[in-house]
Amino acid sequence: MVKRNLETCFSPALYETERHEGSIIVIIDILRASSSICTAFENGARSIIPVATVPEARAYKGKGYLVAAERDGFILDFADFGNSPFNFTPQKVTGKTIVYSTTNGTGIIQMASSAGYIVIGSFLNISSLTGWILKQDKDVVLFCAGWKNRFALEDTICAGAVAERLMASTLYSTICDSTHAALDLWSLAKGDITGYIEKAAQRSRLRDKNLDDCIGFCLTIDYTRKVPIVKEGVLVCVDL
Amino acid sequence: MVKRNLETCFSPALYETERHEGSIIVIIDILRASSSICTAFENGARSIIPVATVPEARAYKGKGYLVAAERDGFILDFADFGNSPFNFTPQKVTGKTIVYSTTNGTGIIQMASSAGYIVIGSFLNISSLTGWILKQDKDVVLFCAGWKNRFALEDTICAGAVAERLMASTLYSTICDSTHAALDLWSLAKGDITGYIEKAAQRSRLRDKNLDDCIGFCLTIDYTRKVPIVKEGVLVCVDL
Repeated sequence: MVKRNLETCFSPALYETERHEGSIIVIIDILRASSSICTAFENGARSIIPVATVPEARAYKGKGYLVAAERDGFILDFADFGNSPFNFTPQKVTGKTIVYSTTNGTGIIQMASSAGYIVIGSFLNISSLTGWILKQDKDVVLFCAGWKNRFALEDTICAGAVAERLMASTLYSTICDSTHAALDLWSLAKGDITGYIEKAAQRSRLRDKNLDDCIGFCLTIDYTRKVPIVKEGVLVCVDL
Repeated sequence: MVKRNLETCFSPALYETERHEGSIIVIIDILRASSSICTAFENGARSIIPVATVPEARAYKGKGYLVAAERDGFILDFADFGNSPFNFTPQKVTGKTIVYSTTNGTGIIQMASSAGYIVIGSFLNISSLTGWILKQDKDVVLFCAGWKNRFALEDTICAGAVAERLMASTLYSTICDSTHAALDLWSLAKGDITGYIEKAAQRSRLRDKNLDDCIGFCLTIDYTRKVPIVKEGVLVCVDL
């Protein structure tokens, strides 16, 4: 049996658009975009329109959409709420289409738009995500959002956790150094994810802005069975 | 005491020219450019002119220079020899100025040219390198060459080894996720560097081309006391 190829991309600046065209791209931005998207679907959101720029988000607001938008942790003045998963409550999102724009995560969804499939990954949906991937028979790229093009530890260990499960299936192999590094860093982190994340720069940024209340939640394994997937530019969800 | 800042850059695509301007940039491309440069100075080379492009290297050959040049492991047809440290023998290099162009390593020397200092790092000169850095009282960026903009394990663990020594000095601190990752990967690798490197893509590339005879040598700690440093675009060496 020919195994499918597993790769990891540590930053938007390292993404190779043409080479990844036929692959499943797993968007990983656990603090906080990909965790918030998973939470929104768990709480009943109908769809999410990811937009890369502030003017796009503002234009949607003008059309009457519910808009979640932040930059560097701060809610944009025209937005209904920001980027914490705790904002996406059933009361706010059930049955709704949400327009969503964040510092890092939503832009890379558009960057990956030429790929075969784009799905959202986090600790919150890791089992359903990997279960879905294993049924697809496709190469996979774990695309870590990082922070302003920089490598981020928290996304990398989540990529390592996903990679561990895919490699354990025997359906995947890798010759990608980034994947090996993610697997190795995950092996160091998995005994105490919260403790490991303490040294991450994003951990400090969120603490400095009093936005770190959601970190424990974002590290919860299997809070939801939802797998958010992009269809024609819009996030909908597959329920496993 | 205010500590100096230590950062790590995993790829030329992640290098932030303006932000790193006042720093010491340590170029790490251990398989094989940075190891070969250290070896050349140990074996008596007077200076090395790093050139980024093939036409530049060819032009220097036309002027009568000794030229070491390769792309993807293959010696360029006009060059005197390629990129193995075993090429830079005392017989060939003593007292000479060498023009040097490689797939990854020499290009990033030019990319970093606006920084305060550029030095060459490898396992071969790690003690003298870190000893030299600790005397400078400057911020440091460990700049891993990687491979065609991709993350490379072998350069990362060498960066981790350098970072471990700088952090142990108490003169440096870091809030850089890449540095934390390099330190952690080095902690996994240091008990058996050769074994750890087995999974690196560059290990396989060199094996496939029968160019892997030098790997054991490139992992030798403290083969030389030379610290190659760029002065006015040319590599010379500081002897510690």
